[in-house]
Amino acid sequence: MNVVDIIIKKRDGQTLTKEEIKYLIEGYTKDIIPDYQMSAFLMATYFKGMTDEETYNLTMAMKNSGKTIDLSRIQGFKVDKHSTGGVGDKTTLVLAPMVASLGIKFAKMSGRGLGHTGGTLDKLEAIRGFNTKMDIEDFIDQVENINLAIIGQSEEIDKADKKMYALRDVTGTVPSIPLIASSIMSKKLAAGADAIVLDVKVGSGAFMKNLEEAKKLAELMKNIGDYAKKKITCVLTNMDEPLGYAIGNSLEVIEAIDTLNGRGPKDLTELCLTLGSYLVLDSNLVKNLEEARALLLEQIRSGKALATFSELVKAQDGNVDYIYHKELFDLGEELIIYAPESGYISRIDSYKIGHASMLLGSGRENLDSEIDYSVGIVLSKKVGDYVNKGEEICKMYIGDKNVDEAIELVLDAYSYSENEIEPKLILDVVR
Amino acid sequence: MNVVDIIIKKRDGQTLTKEEIKYLIEGYTKDIIPDYQMSAFLMATYFKGMTDEETYNLTMAMKNSGKTIDLSRIQGFKVDKHSTGGVGDKTTLVLAPMVASLGIKFAKMSGRGLGHTGGTLDKLEAIRGFNTKMDIEDFIDQVENINLAIIGQSEEIDKADKKMYALRDVTGTVPSIPLIASSIMSKKLAAGADAIVLDVKVGSGAFMKNLEEAKKLAELMKNIGDYAKKKITCVLTNMDEPLGYAIGNSLEVIEAIDTLNGRGPKDLTELCLTLGSYLVLDSNLVKNLEEARALLLEQIRSGKALATFSELVKAQDGNVDYIYHKELFDLGEELIIYAPESGYISRIDSYKIGHASMLLGSGRENLDSEIDYSVGIVLSKKVGDYVNKGEEICKMYIGDKNVDEAIELVLDAYSYSENEIEPKLILDVVR
Repeated sequence: MNVVDIIIKKRDGQTLTKEEIKYLIEGYTKDIIPDYQMSAFLMATYFKGMTDEETYNLTMAMKNSGKTIDLSRIQGFKVDKHSTGGVGDKTTLVLAPMVASLGIKFAKMSGRGLGHTGGTLDKLEAIRGFNTKMDIEDFIDQVENINLAIIGQSEEIDKADKKMYALRDVTGTVPSIPLIASSIMSKKLAAGADAIVLDVKVGSGAFMKNLEEAKKLAELMKNIGDYAKKKITCVLTNMDEPLGYAIGNSLEVIEAIDTLNGRGPKDLTELCLTLGSYLVLDSNLVKNLEEARALLLEQIRSGKALATFSELVKAQDGNVDYIYHKELFDLGEELIIYAPESGYISRIDSYKIGHASMLLGSGRENLDSEIDYSVGIVLSKKVGDYVNKGEEICKMYIGDKNVDEAIELVLDAYSYSENEIEPKLILDVVR
Repeated sequence: MNVVDIIIKKRDGQTLTKEEIKYLIEGYTKDIIPDYQMSAFLMATYFKGMTDEETYNLTMAMKNSGKTIDLSRIQGFKVDKHSTGGVGDKTTLVLAPMVASLGIKFAKMSGRGLGHTGGTLDKLEAIRGFNTKMDIEDFIDQVENINLAIIGQSEEIDKADKKMYALRDVTGTVPSIPLIASSIMSKKLAAGADAIVLDVKVGSGAFMKNLEEAKKLAELMKNIGDYAKKKITCVLTNMDEPLGYAIGNSLEVIEAIDTLNGRGPKDLTELCLTLGSYLVLDSNLVKNLEEARALLLEQIRSGKALATFSELVKAQDGNVDYIYHKELFDLGEELIIYAPESGYISRIDSYKIGHASMLLGSGRENLDSEIDYSVGIVLSKKVGDYVNKGEEICKMYIGDKNVDEAIELVLDAYSYSENEIEPKLILDVVR
């Protein structure tokens, strides 16, 4: 087999065999096939696409490029969750303890934030002492003991994806549906769960700018799940405004705790209940979605969901006091932003809000940036709310970085309309 | 400016500015932009193409990536020639002395053979002592003195093309018309001639597999020439059989000398007269093509063309005796190949013949291969000839390498037909 022939075959729109894809991915992972051939292949794939079977073969070759997690010694039903990357997206912090409090095993490997999107690990680390590094064996032990663990993605898992993702980022080959699908699914399949919910974000600041493309991605991931005999649910959600009110690490943990206390924002609560219901249904604890939702609401009402979050923080060396005393979180200086005009808020550009928060220090411009957990933005109004000129639209929590630039971005993020607007969160479900 | 933005712009089918192209090519030549970004760009260009103006800007950026030759101190009209790479193509050895014998200045930089196509330098080196390495100043001096010099392409010229060509070869991005046009034209414009003839080969074993594509390439190169204010003539020629009868270094030099003596193959003679006539016309020595052709025929008849070839060999330290005593050339052992069936020869696959000759040792499988000047193939019949089963179709001159494989390829190269066939050499002219 020859890598140039494989590139040319894809360039000419032919279907690659399982063996050809395996040869390419193995060779690339082992540094035998150089970046310049992989990037030509990725660009050819951008233009010519892949069949579902090719994408499945690519996914499996990527999955097998590193270690895979064997959860088989954990008794019970094992679930996982992934989001394609949102702004203000603290869903995992609510969803995971809520579902785990029912005895469903939630073994979650998370990422860090980069650019305008945050990362679950960074958020958890806003709780003093929280440790996200753990051996795989200890990780599995913890899931066995308390039904839940959240750690960083091991370097040993899905090595191909790490190399390919970095390369796609610098070669203009990110927005390719088969490449996005295989990147997500290879990592999730390597992590070993029985059922996975995928939160596919649609809108500004998301990979998928429109619903049609997002549905294609969702259906492709569902098909890959079918091939791999895993239960996949894709929930397509609106990213035309940030999720909830809070953006920034400490601020988002506080909002997640509020939500576990039953006092969370409507959209965040709804999303967590929707995603959670499918996992509960897949676990066969209930007969239908309504029962699943009722069960989850009861976990919040009874305080069991919060108690599981507390167990998680304790098990991973975090200071549990933070959960019950929000004032322990350091927060930046408050700066109020006022509406420059009157009207219904028709849009809050997630990309701009996420970028503003990152500039303040909540995220990373590059992989070496240090994070300031205390900064961020709390929206005072959401899409659909009416504001008068001069009314507060959000609070910024600032440090010593990029304040003027962030203010400009935030002001620019809001659009106003004379007409009433009904925002929609859940756009579609593919399962 | 940012290289990822440039890749994305091309990927999305937008037109790049002169500055963007310059930034890309300069950065790549200086090793600031890595191969993996250039290969993604090249693949995007393969799919999205370039406007004529973009291709011109690319050509000029490539030309300016290395030294350019200043021929201005040479008095008189300066010409150059390029072939897109044929089998049995010894045209330069005949054309250059024929034209130079008229006082037209022929300053030629040539390449070496790779794969199934031969290179002029390798052919000239079949003449004992012939030196193809020379300082640029000495090269210009020689053109001033005897109207003609043929040397290897300097490493310092068109550095971008060297890097890009090597990269295209291993990333499936060779067959892109703007990339082929800019590669050829940047080298030719860097070499500084006033008029250039381009022999665009069409058919098996050529870049251009069909006439339509070849015409597009020719018209694009002509347009680049117009932008650069150079006289460009593209002659589109049939490569559905090798040119002349001889393939292999010594064999081809012998055939070139025969042609300079007026006893060459019909097709080779015709091609040299056609290409040469346009150069003579461009030089304003004559009023029309008929006069140009008559002048060139007279240079052969009078022996002046051969005398100029002899001067070239002498000036570049070659043994002039070879020109008048063909028996000085070492030749391999003769092996006759017989027709396996009767019929009109309808095709002699250039790629297969070229490949067979290379396997015998006349060419390079890779850049480190050593050449055996004594081996090759001499066709006994050409396309259109009738053969009886068992009649001789060619002679192989073999060394100690790959004889069985070469025989198989040669037998496989011939196609036979019941119908008479009239081969056509010159398919079109664009100027």
